[in-house]
Amino acid sequence: MTGLFVTLEGGDGAGKSTQAELLEQWLHERGRSTLRTREPGGTPLGASIRELVLHGRGHIDARAEALLYAADRAQHIATVVRPALHAGTVVLQDRYVDSSIAYQGAGRELGGDEIRELSRWATRDLVPDLTVLLDLDVAEGRRRLDAARGRFDRLEAEAAAFHERVRRTYLELAASEPDRFLVVDATLERDAIAELIRARVDVALASRADAERDDAAALAPPEGER
Amino acid sequence: MTGLFVTLEGGDGAGKSTQAELLEQWLHERGRSTLRTREPGGTPLGASIRELVLHGRGHIDARAEALLYAADRAQHIATVVRPALHAGTVVLQDRYVDSSIAYQGAGRELGGDEIRELSRWATRDLVPDLTVLLDLDVAEGRRRLDAARGRFDRLEAEAAAFHERVRRTYLELAASEPDRFLVVDATLERDAIAELIRARVDVALASRADAERDDAAALAPPEGER
Repeated sequence: MTGLFVTLEGGDGAGKSTQAELLEQWLHERGRSTLRTREPGGTPLGASIRELVLHGRGHIDARAEALLYAADRAQHIATVVRPALHAGTVVLQDRYVDSSIAYQGAGRELGGDEIRELSRWATRDLVPDLTVLLDLDVAEGRRRLDAARGRFDRLEAEAAAFHERVRRTYLELAASEPDRFLVVDATLERDAIAELIRARVDVALASRADAERDDAAALAPPEGER
Repeated sequence: MTGLFVTLEGGDGAGKSTQAELLEQWLHERGRSTLRTREPGGTPLGASIRELVLHGRGHIDARAEALLYAADRAQHIATVVRPALHAGTVVLQDRYVDSSIAYQGAGRELGGDEIRELSRWATRDLVPDLTVLLDLDVAEGRRRLDAARGRFDRLEAEAAAFHERVRRTYLELAASEPDRFLVVDATLERDAIAELIRARVDVALASRADAERDDAAALAPPEGER
């Protein structure tokens, strides 16, 4: 695959959408094609699943919820993300496996390892090249959301302790995979955050280009045979 | 759990609904309360999932489909079947884990073991007390369906080779768990089939009653202390 798979993670209100937009503009200026997408809901099937999970009536069993998110993910990765990466596109995705581990695994106490296994199976092991974690204090995140929207969906309305577990899980995931993660303080100015993300994406794109050159060189006939 | 969990398996057109009805009548005559249910679609969430899978537009990734069925199953077992079994009800369920292994695992070549693992996780390992497999030649099954309906949903319209794999997988599952399975030739007269099923259910109910008496005896104070 020649594209780059970048995921954005963090609580609601941390600024994922804003940063995805700024990064996309910057990539366009550099002549890269981009795909902006999200889970849940990045496909027609996913949109129906999202509707079921977030706005369905009645109690949803915790494992049923985790399996619905995994189904959305399988469809989205197979039909949207992999084809885009194969075409050389930079994919900017709002939420991925780390969200599931943080929200369903730790948040709902289902077990992060089981949720990770489920996602691996669903995606045939597609791991992001870079994951940007916009880290934000839970109280500050709630304050931002209150100010912006005035209403919550089902997940957002969970108690503060839930969001504390989510945040702690995110930070543990980042600590265990420092090469994949960029953790950014979401209270910084938005342009300062954008600059930190660009620097890291720049490195990833350059190393991807190097790898492609090496592959091309390896495929070319040796000097003496040209 | 004091109820009895009976599942009915087999291709469409094999007579699962008819036999479930006859068995239910017989159980009612014996004073047992029953719950008739099915997957997919045994809950409001499941009905929405069923609609997505069977009548949704566009291609559904094979793993996404398997995960949707698992989500339906998790919700159905947690909110419908387990409560009924705890209340002593005989649950008669049209399709369960064996259907997933046969249709998604073998039929779509996803791998029966992975599908079984998925279902185990979804259901917290709820295994039926008895599974009735109504075994029918594939060509005969198609003939019955054509005559009865004149239309097919997506799964039914799959090629004959698919249904051959499904049938073979069912028979292998039954051979590997003879204590759980009752395999019946679905071309027998419906009353003859019903009689075979009743005989087996009768044994299961009697051994369940024995186990309960033993449990009660074990819980009672020893003779000398009465």
